[in-house]
Amino acid sequence: DTQHPEMRIEEEMERVVDQTKELQEAARSLISKSSREEKDLQQRARSLYTSMDELRSSIISLTLDDHMDHRLAEKLEAELNRAKCILVDGDASYFLVGKVESWFLKRFLGPINVRAIRKDVQLKVKEEYNSYKDRTTWLFLLFPSILLFLRSWMWDGCMPAFPVQLYQAWLLFLYAGLALRENILRVNGSDIRPWWIYHHYCAMVMALVSLTWEIKGQPDCAQKQRGVELFLQWAMMQGVAMLLQNRYQRQRLYTRIALGKAKRMDVVWGETAGERGQLWLLCPMLFVLQGFEAYVGLLLLQTTVVGVVSEWQVVFCGILLVLMALGNFVNTVQTLLVKSRF
Amino acid sequence: DTQHPEMRIEEEMERVVDQTKELQEAARSLISKSSREEKDLQQRARSLYTSMDELRSSIISLTLDDHMDHRLAEKLEAELNRAKCILVDGDASYFLVGKVESWFLKRFLGPINVRAIRKDVQLKVKEEYNSYKDRTTWLFLLFPSILLFLRSWMWDGCMPAFPVQLYQAWLLFLYAGLALRENILRVNGSDIRPWWIYHHYCAMVMALVSLTWEIKGQPDCAQKQRGVELFLQWAMMQGVAMLLQNRYQRQRLYTRIALGKAKRMDVVWGETAGERGQLWLLCPMLFVLQGFEAYVGLLLLQTTVVGVVSEWQVVFCGILLVLMALGNFVNTVQTLLVKSRF
Ligand SMILES: CC(C)(COP(=O)(O)OP(=O)(O)OC[C@H]1O[C@@H](n2cnc3c(N)ncnc32)[C@H](O)[C@@H]1OP(=O)(O)O)[C@@H](O)C(=O)NCCC(=O)NCCS
Ligand SMILES: CC(C)(COP(=O)(O)OP(=O)(O)OC[C@H]1O[C@@H](n2cnc3c(N)ncnc32)[C@H](O)[C@@H]1OP(=O)(O)O)[C@@H](O)C(=O)NCCC(=O)NCCS
Repeated sequence: DTQHPEMRIEEEMERVVDQTKELQEAARSLISKSSREEKDLQQRARSLYTSMDELRSSIISLTLDDHMDHRLAEKLEAELNRAKCILVDGDASYFLVGKVESWFLKRFLGPINVRAIRKDVQLKVKEEYNSYKDRTTWLFLLFPSILLFLRSWMWDGCMPAFPVQLYQAWLLFLYAGLALRENILRVNGSDIRPWWIYHHYCAMVMALVSLTWEIKGQPDCAQKQRGVELFLQWAMMQGVAMLLQNRYQRQRLYTRIALGKAKRMDVVWGETAGERGQLWLLCPMLFVLQGFEAYVGLLLLQTTVVGVVSEWQVVFCGILLVLMALGNFVNTVQTLLVKSRF
Repeated sequence: DTQHPEMRIEEEMERVVDQTKELQEAARSLISKSSREEKDLQQRARSLYTSMDELRSSIISLTLDDHMDHRLAEKLEAELNRAKCILVDGDASYFLVGKVESWFLKRFLGPINVRAIRKDVQLKVKEEYNSYKDRTTWLFLLFPSILLFLRSWMWDGCMPAFPVQLYQAWLLFLYAGLALRENILRVNGSDIRPWWIYHHYCAMVMALVSLTWEIKGQPDCAQKQRGVELFLQWAMMQGVAMLLQNRYQRQRLYTRIALGKAKRMDVVWGETAGERGQLWLLCPMLFVLQGFEAYVGLLLLQTTVVGVVSEWQVVFCGILLVLMALGNFVNTVQTLLVKSRF
């Protein structure tokens, strides 16, 4: 370069300053333009949704008044369903859904938006949730097995407090993570029943309470630790059920991804044969597990009545377990009833 | 309407179906267009950032070689700083920052994006964080005060376990919320030092450990509960310091919002006089508090050496408190040093 270096730098500086201003303008206009366009799409999506509802009721009332041929009505309704499916399940769905409020997320994350606009990101979040569950389920199974094994093999029926408390602390963080992630999935349009999330809140409370529950040592610790033992046995069973459940739900997700669907709003959409088979295997296990959950709860309550242990934690965990078992049962049955309607 | 109702409905249906398809297309193209434009802005922002760095080093090397007038060099550097400020602090900043990875958020939330593209949303998140701290600080102050008051007034120097454990569980959730929110702020471009976040991780661990720490009853409980008592006294002091800290940081935020700045990258940007005054009041308090924090830690360690209590939890909390005090001290001093450079 034959130019004077000072001049070269001043020119370069001018270029940089200009480009910075341009970039700032471009960024500002992109941000405001997209938020304007988003608002527009939101309005269009909502009014379309209302039109669809009106159309459906018109069809129904015309059919009832015999002003419309049944054949035609059926055809129109099928068409309407297809359109609704596109609206609710397609790329526009982001603009349709009003903000789902999650008290839990607000409390822990503040007013941040956790909704993903792109379908592939939403699916990734869901997939990652599944693989998180897979990874933790193995620990879920392993942890209590090791504790129970060491108890009879090394510890002479008397578990030391520390490993049990470590396990309980791990449970607390596990459930907190699941509750946060499930709330995020819900905000992203998942149809998960609220109960499964409440269930994780309850499990968090139980883990917390059990942390304050003093692990008694000798003498008579076999009897005093009966509650912990039952709890661990139940946890092992739950681990097995969770493995099956994960497999089933992962397959459902893959089928859906293959079909290009994020939701199952499509009325035609039921379970595939393979899924149905897995569900038939899963459900008896779930009911047995729920029965055992209630049984463990009742046994805990019994130990306090008989007077072996008398801490409030035991009563509390007993009642909570029974309530959780009931809720799980009711919600599993309701899910099956909904499914059987297809 | 004189038309046949069937025909009217079929027409209406056609309209709805067409609109649905249009909307789906519009949504898809908006999403893909914005992601393309975002990528473009990202590239421009990054290359501009590199140019600025190169320009700065050219200026420095030319000045050192005496190929450039010092006056000019200063003028150019000031100009460069202004440009950098616009880039880093303006609307384009969203496109500049690479994804800040937060292990904690990934673990608990999964692969969801918590960055806000709009400056006003970022500020709202920050404001909400401040008001969350305000709200909880009062509880932070009230909780231990009530416990200590009841202890000497009603409980005869012997705290029952339940209220203390309730307090510890509350602390655990409080710190978890703070840690999550601060990670989110960091992802949104806050300059918060990582230590303040680690500090909340440590506080979470301590709350968890203290939950498993058995609250001893009579006899001699005044002596056995000495650790808890010290901890509560320290918590009260911390509450007062947090109130001052919140006031100071809130004022900083308001000044910045008034100046239209989201960050303090502007080199001209220092503290206002009022802020400086608050900092002079705050800092001695912070140092006293950090001294007391270490002192409580050492006292806890001493109780185990003397042999009054011998649980591992006490040793652990003692060591953790000393480490936290050291870290807080070092980081406060470093912050002050950075500030004094302006
Ligand atoms: C019965 C069961 C297998 C049905 O699963 P399913 O076929 O996926 O149920 P649905 O079709 O109603 O699912 C609707 C949504 O909720 C989700 N979901 C269902 N049950 C869930 C659960 N227990 N935890 C988390 N998410 C669940 C599904 O993944 C689906 O999400 P999507 O809309 O994002 O795709 C399932 O609910 C289950 O396993 N429940 C029993 C749990 C239990 O009792 N465990 C014992 C104690 S731990
Ligand atoms: C020293 C102190 C007052 C400086 O505060 P400051 O002037 O805001 O510090 P900085 O200018 O370095 O702040 C940089 C960023 O970190 C944030 N920050 C600083 N200290 C923080 C803390 N302790 N907790 C959370 N955020 C903090 C600021 O809000 C700012 O965020 P921004 O970039 O989004 O605006 C503050 O760090 C402090 O109070 N530290 C002591 C904490 C302590 O030891 N407590 C006793 C035990 S709890």
